[in-house]
Amino acid sequence: MKIDLAFTPEELEKKDLEGKSVVVIDALRATSTVIVALENGCSAFIPVGTVEEARELTVEHPEFLLAGERRALPLEGFHLGNSPRDYRPDKVKGKIIVLTTTNGTRALVASQRGAEVFIGSFLNLGALTRRLVEAGRDILIACSGEKGLFCLEDTVCGGAIVERLEKTGLSLSKTDAAFAAKVLYEHCENDVYGMLCNSEWGQYLEGLGLGKDVRLCARVDSSSLVPVYREGKIFLDR
Amino acid sequence: MKIDLAFTPEELEKKDLEGKSVVVIDALRATSTVIVALENGCSAFIPVGTVEEARELTVEHPEFLLAGERRALPLEGFHLGNSPRDYRPDKVKGKIIVLTTTNGTRALVASQRGAEVFIGSFLNLGALTRRLVEAGRDILIACSGEKGLFCLEDTVCGGAIVERLEKTGLSLSKTDAAFAAKVLYEHCENDVYGMLCNSEWGQYLEGLGLGKDVRLCARVDSSSLVPVYREGKIFLDR
Repeated sequence: MKIDLAFTPEELEKKDLEGKSVVVIDALRATSTVIVALENGCSAFIPVGTVEEARELTVEHPEFLLAGERRALPLEGFHLGNSPRDYRPDKVKGKIIVLTTTNGTRALVASQRGAEVFIGSFLNLGALTRRLVEAGRDILIACSGEKGLFCLEDTVCGGAIVERLEKTGLSLSKTDAAFAAKVLYEHCENDVYGMLCNSEWGQYLEGLGLGKDVRLCARVDSSSLVPVYREGKIFLDR
Repeated sequence: MKIDLAFTPEELEKKDLEGKSVVVIDALRATSTVIVALENGCSAFIPVGTVEEARELTVEHPEFLLAGERRALPLEGFHLGNSPRDYRPDKVKGKIIVLTTTNGTRALVASQRGAEVFIGSFLNLGALTRRLVEAGRDILIACSGEKGLFCLEDTVCGGAIVERLEKTGLSLSKTDAAFAAKVLYEHCENDVYGMLCNSEWGQYLEGLGLGKDVRLCARVDSSSLVPVYREGKIFLDR
């Protein structure tokens, strides 16, 4: 089985995804938030690129919730931000949520050329690994990055997937990028929370008083859900 | 002092280079080749983007040598390829060489917005570190990558620069990318040659029978030269 990793959506756009399982990661915070929301009973997410698209969708479907952020800050008139702590059961149970985030959406759009797309974060590493093994396809890990640049936390999370897969006894053929991600994960393995706190984006969130979100995104294996992204929606298919 | 790293020329193009020392790396093989050639008495390199530009320059200046490659293979009618072993003193002494390579040129072009641009590889790590300390500016390490994607060897070489700089006692503020590069270097530190051999591009070169080049590019600290790139030329300014 081959495994590759794209540090940014731009890199992803250059890769051949045909027949592959793609894992989209935006560990701080979008993909962690999605998992928490689905844990709390949310029905589905519809990720969109722009704030305008999001608003238009809710004109047509006033029952949808609007969620998102720009540079980690909430958007005017939106029901939810991008803090996993916002997505409490009383708010999200049974709801469809239209989501627009700074970095996550572009990776999702580019990932659609894959055979199947899973949503990953530190929260669901174990469940994700089992699903990838079961699928048996070559794998492309798609990091969301930050404004088209490398970010540490997504890559380390990708490296954790590589490491978990190898621990199952699977023989993986790793590209340079997948090898590098695994080395980075092994370096941070004993202190994922510390790595998140020291990352550039973690520091930025901390500076905005969002340190609690960082702690929540470091809860390794706290969820057994593996959301899929299919036909424009993120949901649980089993 | 701040230090950052771009994995690819695309990333470099998004970065602010104003007032910075930029180090361009294409460890397998272009920047290693340039250093070997200058060691062997070559006067200067003129890097250009296309084969056509290279040919045009030698029409005007028939005394220039034509050098370059595409996907590691030599170009028809060119005097030199991109193997450091080609650049013997009897061929290059006193010569100006027009060079076009697959990945190196784009990083050089993007690097020109920096205050000064140095050419780096494993061959001149120590000399380069001294020059960067002396310059005292913030630093941007520009990896050439491979077709716009991450490549291991350039990043590890960049990480070696981070590590060497910190060993001088300098207090560096590292971005996520600079931190990651240092971790990768520390992982490979005891076997730079092995890392080069196992990298995707190293394997490709090996497959073409160019394993001797890989070995030569692993000669850490074999040169005390720090070429500069200024006004379109690579040369020694001291």
